[in-house]
This record gives sequence, C-alpha cells and structure tokens, in this order.
Amino acid sequence: MSKEITSREQDYSQWYNDLVIKGGLADYSAVRGCMVIKPYGFALWENMRDALDKMFKDTGHVNAYFPLFIPKSFLSKEAAHVEGFAKECAVVTHYRLKNDPDGNGIVVDPEAKLEEELIVRPTSETIIWNTYKDWIKSYRDLPLLINQWANVVRWEMRTRLFLRTAEFLWQEGHTAHATAEEAVAETKQMLEVYATFAEEFMALPVIRGVKTASERFAGAEDTYCIEALMQDGKALQAGTSHFLGQNFAKAFDVKFLSKENQLEYVWATSWGVSTRLIGALVMAHSDDDGLVLPPKIAPLQVVIVPIYKGDEQKLQIGTKADEIMKALKALGIRVKYDDNDNSRPGWKFAEYELKGVPVRVALGARDLQNNVVEIARRDNKTKEIISLEGVVAHIQNLLADVQQNMYNKAAAYREQHITRVDKWEEFERLLDEKGGFLSAHWDGTVETEDAIKEKTKATIRCIPLNNTAEKGKCILTGKASTQRVLFARAY
Amino acid sequence: MSKEITSREQDYSQWYNDLVIKGGLADYSAVRGCMVIKPYGFALWENMRDALDKMFKDTGHVNAYFPLFIPKSFLSKEAAHVEGFAKECAVVTHYRLKNDPDGNGIVVDPEAKLEEELIVRPTSETIIWNTYKDWIKSYRDLPLLINQWANVVRWEMRTRLFLRTAEFLWQEGHTAHATAEEAVAETKQMLEVYATFAEEFMALPVIRGVKTASERFAGAEDTYCIEALMQDGKALQAGTSHFLGQNFAKAFDVKFLSKENQLEYVWATSWGVSTRLIGALVMAHSDDDGLVLPPKIAPLQVVIVPIYKGDEQKLQIGTKADEIMKALKALGIRVKYDDNDNSRPGWKFAEYELKGVPVRVALGARDLQNNVVEIARRDNKTKEIISLEGVVAHIQNLLADVQQNMYNKAAAYREQHITRVDKWEEFERLLDEKGGFLSAHWDGTVETEDAIKEKTKATIRCIPLNNTAEKGKCILTGKASTQRVLFARAY
Repeated sequence: MSKEITSREQDYSQWYNDLVIKGGLADYSAVRGCMVIKPYGFALWENMRDALDKMFKDTGHVNAYFPLFIPKSFLSKEAAHVEGFAKECAVVTHYRLKNDPDGNGIVVDPEAKLEEELIVRPTSETIIWNTYKDWIKSYRDLPLLINQWANVVRWEMRTRLFLRTAEFLWQEGHTAHATAEEAVAETKQMLEVYATFAEEFMALPVIRGVKTASERFAGAEDTYCIEALMQDGKALQAGTSHFLGQNFAKAFDVKFLSKENQLEYVWATSWGVSTRLIGALVMAHSDDDGLVLPPKIAPLQVVIVPIYKGDEQKLQIGTKADEIMKALKALGIRVKYDDNDNSRPGWKFAEYELKGVPVRVALGARDLQNNVVEIARRDNKTKEIISLEGVVAHIQNLLADVQQNMYNKAAAYREQHITRVDKWEEFERLLDEKGGFLSAHWDGTVETEDAIKEKTKATIRCIPLNNTAEKGKCILTGKASTQRVLFARAY
Repeated sequence: MSKEITSREQDYSQWYNDLVIKGGLADYSAVRGCMVIKPYGFALWENMRDALDKMFKDTGHVNAYFPLFIPKSFLSKEAAHVEGFAKECAVVTHYRLKNDPDGNGIVVDPEAKLEEELIVRPTSETIIWNTYKDWIKSYRDLPLLINQWANVVRWEMRTRLFLRTAEFLWQEGHTAHATAEEAVAETKQMLEVYATFAEEFMALPVIRGVKTASERFAGAEDTYCIEALMQDGKALQAGTSHFLGQNFAKAFDVKFLSKENQLEYVWATSWGVSTRLIGALVMAHSDDDGLVLPPKIAPLQVVIVPIYKGDEQKLQIGTKADEIMKALKALGIRVKYDDNDNSRPGWKFAEYELKGVPVRVALGARDLQNNVVEIARRDNKTKEIISLEGVVAHIQNLLADVQQNMYNKAAAYREQHITRVDKWEEFERLLDEKGGFLSAHWDGTVETEDAIKEKTKATIRCIPLNNTAEKGKCILTGKASTQRVLFARAY
C-alpha cells in the first residue's frame, strides 16, 4: 500500500479522515474549522455542481449573486430565524488594521469600527428578501426562481472535514411565488431534484421526507429533506427544501399586487445542498482500500497503467494507449494515462484504488502480443481479461454497470437497515447493535422527541413522504399514534 | 423607449450606472459597497468564467478552494503585502451574537471574542502559501498550478458597481515553481491568456505591459497587466499577472529539495481577473440606447420577436419561429422567442436593445407570406430583410461578424487614442481634451511619476511589452529617458 488507511472496523471516524485527506479530497487549514478543498476534491465538487446546476436550469431557475455580509439588524427581523443562526456566526466589527503604535505588528484600528456589525452569511434569506422587496411589485414579477452558488459560514464548535465545517460551499435557491400552492409545489419539486441527483449521480439512495417541527429550518413552515444512510448505520441529512410561507415576506414587507388588484404578501421557498454531500459520498460507498467514486461524478473515470520494461515496450504500449484514450475521450469519458516512470505499477494500482477511480486498465507488453487487456473495477474489485478489439465499448458499459451496482449495493444495505420496532428495549438495543433507521410510532409531541433524543441520541430523521397511516402506540410513551416515523442516530 | 438612459455626453458616469442597473446586470445592496449581481449579469459572468476556466485547464491548471478567512498574523509575514492590504479589510473579531440583556435586540456577545482576529480575504497569497508549505517537499511536487474562483473583500471607500466594490468575484491563480525562469514564463503565459480572452471573447483590445515599481502588486517582483481603453478616454486595468519571486516562499518558509538535493525556496506567481471585467465590457462597447454585448459571451445571442394580430397569426408565426429556434439551438446558439402578450413589439425592441442582445429577428405575418424576415444587429443598428431560406446560416455568420466588428471598432478607437507627446503643455492639454493613452518619455523615477500624477491625475498604465528602445527626454523633468511609457487617467 502506498498510504496507510485505518480500517472501518478499527476506527470508522479515523477511516473517514484518512480517506478524505490521503485520498486528496481536502485538508485542514490554519483557520479553525475551515478546510482546504484540494484539486481532486474540487474536481469532484465541480462535477456535482455542474450536474445540479443543469437540473436547476432545466427546471427554470437562474443564478445570481448576493452579498457575503448581512447587516446584524436583518437577522433579527424574522424571530425564529435569529434564534437559529445568531449563536454561530462570524461577526465583522471593523474595516481596517493599522501598525501597532507600541510596535507589536498590526492591530485592529479602533477608529475603524462599523456603526452596525456585519454577519458573514450563514444563509441568505434575509439579505435576499430585503432585495426582493425592490424587485417584486406585481404578480407579473412572479415567480422569481433564483439560485446562488456561494460560501457560507456557521461557527460550529465541533467540525469535521466536509460534514461540518465553519465555512462550506453550497447552493441556496430562493424563490418567490404568488400562492402558497405554487410555493409548496416548488418546495417538493426541488426535493425531488435533490433525490434524483443523489440517486442517479451519487448512487446514493435517499428517503424523501418531512421534518418534525423541532428539526425544521429556522423560519420555515415546513422542511422537506432527503436522508441517506452511512455504512456505520448513522443517517445523514443530504439536502433540504423549505416552504417558508409568508414569514420572510412579512419580515421584509414584500407585497405584490395580485391579478385581482389586491396587495398580498409573497410566498417563499428556499433549498440547499452543500459540500457536505462529499462527506456522504465518501461514507456511503468507500472501503478499507480507499475511496469508491460513482463514475458519473468521478473526476477521473478510467486510468490506464502501462506495464513495461525498456523504452521500446513503453513506446508500443503508449501507442496503443493513445488510441484507446482518443476513443474514450470521444465518448466524453474522463481518462488518464499514467506512464510516470517514478513509480511502479503496483504503487499506482494502490494509489488509484485509494482515489476511487472506477475503472483501471493495465496494459502490458505480453497483453499487446495476445491482443488482450486487463480491466479492474474499483467497486467490487473484480478483474477480467478482455480482447482489445471491443475494449472501448466494454469500458463504456462497465462504467454504467459500476454506477448501477454501487446504487444497488447501497440500496440493499439501506433496506436491510430500516427496521420496524415496537418495543422500547428493542429500540435501544437496535440503535446500539444494528443502527440504521428505526421505523417506530411516536406520539407527535416535542417532549417525547426530546426525551428519546436525550436517552438514545437518536432523532426523528423524517416522516417519509407518502407514509402509510397506521394506528399504533408511541415507542416511548405508549400514547396513541397515527403513523410511524424514522428514527436514527445521525451526522 | 422603455427605460430612460442618460446619454454619454450628458453624464458618462450616470450613463454607466443606468446601463448596469436598467440593463439588469447588477443592483446596489443594503450593505455598503456590496452589489447584487442580477440574473442577467450573472449569466454574462458565467459565460466569461466558463471561457476562462477552460483556458486555465487547457494550460494545465486545476481548481481548488481555500478558506475565506486569513489569520491576522499571516498578513504581516510579507512586509510589502501587509502595507498594501491592511488598510482596507473586513475584520472578524467575534463568533457569536446574543440577546441584549437590556432588551435592545441582538448584540455581539463580548465573551465570544476571537483570540486572533480573522481577515476576510482581500487576496489569498498568504493562506495559500501557508498551505503550500505542507504540500511542497521535493521538486517532484512542482510545479503546482492551482486556481481558485472566489469572492474577496476590500473595504474601498468610494465604490462603483462592478468597477470597484467592497466584495467582488474573481479568480486567483497561485502557482509554485522550481525556478525563476519557469515562474516568469508562467506569469507571461497567463497574461497572454487574459489578453486572448479579452480580445477574442470580450472584443476588447488590450495593451500588454508591465507596471512600474510603484504600481506593482503588494508583494510582487513584477506585475504584468493588460490595459483597456474606455469610451471616455480613460484606461482600465483589466487583469494582472504577478511574478512574486521567492517573497511568499520566504515569508512562509516554503522550501523544496531540488534535483541536485539542495533545499531551495520555491518561486511563485499569482494572477487574477474579476467581475470588474463586466464594467470594462459595458464601458468599452455600449451606446446611448443600452448595452452592446459581444456574441461570444452574451447571455442571449438572438431574440425573435413576433409581430401579429390575433391568435391565428400568432400560431403561424410561432410555428415558423419554433423551427428557426430549433435549428439555431442545434448550432449551440442561445436564442429566445418572446411572444409575451403583455408588451408590444416596439417595447420589446427597446428592451432587447437596452440589454444588448446582438441579433434581433422580427417575424411578421406579412413577412411569412413573402418568405422573408427582418434582422437587426445591435452593434451598428443596421437592419436588413432576408429570405427565410437561409436565415439560420445568415444569423450564424452575423454573430461572428458582430463579434469581429465590435473588436475592430474598439481597436480603431484605441489606435486613435494613443498619442505620442513630447511637450508637457501638450501632455496636459491632451489629457483634458482628448484623453486616451499618451506615449511619453519618463525619467524612470518614482518622484517624477508621483509629480505627474499629482499634477494631472494621470498614471503610468504600463511599459508595453516589446517596447522599442528610444532615447529621449522625460516629459516633465527633461532628464534622459530610454523608452516611452503609456500614461493615462484611469478607472
């Protein structure tokens, strides 16, 4: 092995960090809680971003950009919102440094104090709705379907690369509508966009659901979510879509003249996914040898490694590899030929396994003679020798197969880890021994939700959409319940 | 006219603001000096960004992402750098808000004071070189060719939309090399990438040059630049590429083991262009009727406006328009069909003129009968009636022609506004009466440069690359000079 990776069994958390750092996705930075997204990780993010961006545009959205800073007073305008975000924000109080008169380097210039402090955006509802006030006058200005790709900052105390960082990259959609129905439809549409993206591009099966009141976004009427399951049995919220009602329109006084010539408050949604998705991707698919990336978003889909002795063999193999590369590239496949003389084939194999490249092609001098090639797939680590004749079509099919197989594997794991539970002792035992989602009855009160969280660290991940009604008794209190909800310990 | 635009003659500065705001590019925000980039402006930026990003990748660069925040102490590590950036930065001092115990809303929590203040990045050399220290050990790790697309903040006192805003979007390349020669070659290569982008995509002729010592980037050994000319005769620095020598490697102690097994400091470059380019684009090409956008980056390249009475005509024209649209889209042309019933054709014509759409197609019921169509080009406002048969190929050619014509026009204007001057009185007079670049001798001292700036507000924009040697006398002091340099008043 080129680099030592802690096994999942040994230390799941360390395994994750090893993959992220040694796999070249991200690194810690000198700034507490902020990460550096390394080129390989950023290329992965670019592929995810581009796929999502296309889906947003295909559903009629446009991109824009709003200020990084939010005046402190804006945060207070929506009561629930300020509760949710004031506790963890970076506050800009001054706009100049100066040389310390006592010679201690540079210091904040006390004379350059802002009249009103600025908050580095933790999310942009307030600054955006303050802007929408100027943009929306009539029903003809609606709907506004705007998205922003941006960095945001939340001053988290305990951070983990990708999963929870002080600064992260995300997109935030902010739409404005004339009716509640339209806004709800938008909220659900974007949840479905997220679910489709997770399943089709990330090979990550997700449960579509709605949050309980206490897990809602600060300022939302309803928060829809997609929930994924990691290999350690913990759930991870992978995206949220909020129906904001008229809360922000009222806070920022955004009204429109309706077709019926009435002044009405505008209806809102917001929805976002972030670089956190990369954490989910790593934890859902990877193994003890390294990352396992789904072909559709992998920065590199195929790597060709030559095995040769001497320049003549290298030249022969290189010529053949060029030919294969060209044909693959013509199909839009991201391929690299690694003929670096500084490392051996075995080292390269381990390195590309660590980096999760879906398909590896090993091309040796004897293979060329026999007109064959060895192809290894990263997901299930099988190898096969195939004829060079059909190699390009074979690889193209293989990529699709790897993508589907990764999804199937994750879906099977997820299905095995949704357990119906009706007794409290079993609920507690399963959380410790099996993990995953526990489908259980709940009496619908915040008190019970809190008590369960307190006792077990499990939260209600969501009430699945299209949940079936079922009379039962609350798993903790035994009180009457009308449906099961999904509990899990979560990231 | 749909919206009133101030003419250039009347008030050039107001004309610019009118175009930016009424043309839908950007808007002021509630945060001092920060702008909102509106969807139309952002679509323009996306096209610029995508073209540049491809050029960066084609020259071997990869993208990454570094933290928004820079520890205060980092800024001080490079002496010239801190002088340049400490005066205008946003300083984060606290990480939490709380409810005011006196009931005055929310206030900064004094207990949540950071031990070391964080600066919102004005540029990222310091945080990046602090990271490179961990990434670079050997000559095998070099070169590092990394770019970042990001927001940055410089606390400017006087701001103007796009041209000078507290927050702006940009890209910053930061490369690391084993030798000075390689770093200088990279610096020049990226200048050429910028020049090519400006000329080929923005239709903006630029002068490639090098800055004088006093106009250099804070921390650079040499700053290369491209300088463009606006319609009011003022110059605008459109992009810079810096050879940083070993300054940042020394400041952050970044050494590598050379092939000869010697520990050496790494050589650096950095280079950037920003949303300021949009300001340059507006001021270089637009006219009193609105924006004039070059086809290659225009969000919308063609608009088709139907002229009809009644549903039957609308249907007929719509069918034909669909056909044209499909054929244009198949060629990758960005086209919109505007059959909105709420506004008249004349209003739409004015609106798309204001928005700078390069080609407008008007399709009327009588045109259909005659198998013709009216095509108007935005750049020179000419119209022609052509047969519907060849309309798609015609439009495709027209877009290329508009692009070239816009470049030619700007280049001709620029050529007319580079004036050789040898007498001080003429220098002063030309600055006031004609503007543009004045090619004049300079004695090479900072004192003279400062004196000229003081007297005339003109600065040395650059010493053009491949400048011819020419003995002469300094325009101000009469002292000996070896070459002419370009002076101008500038944005």
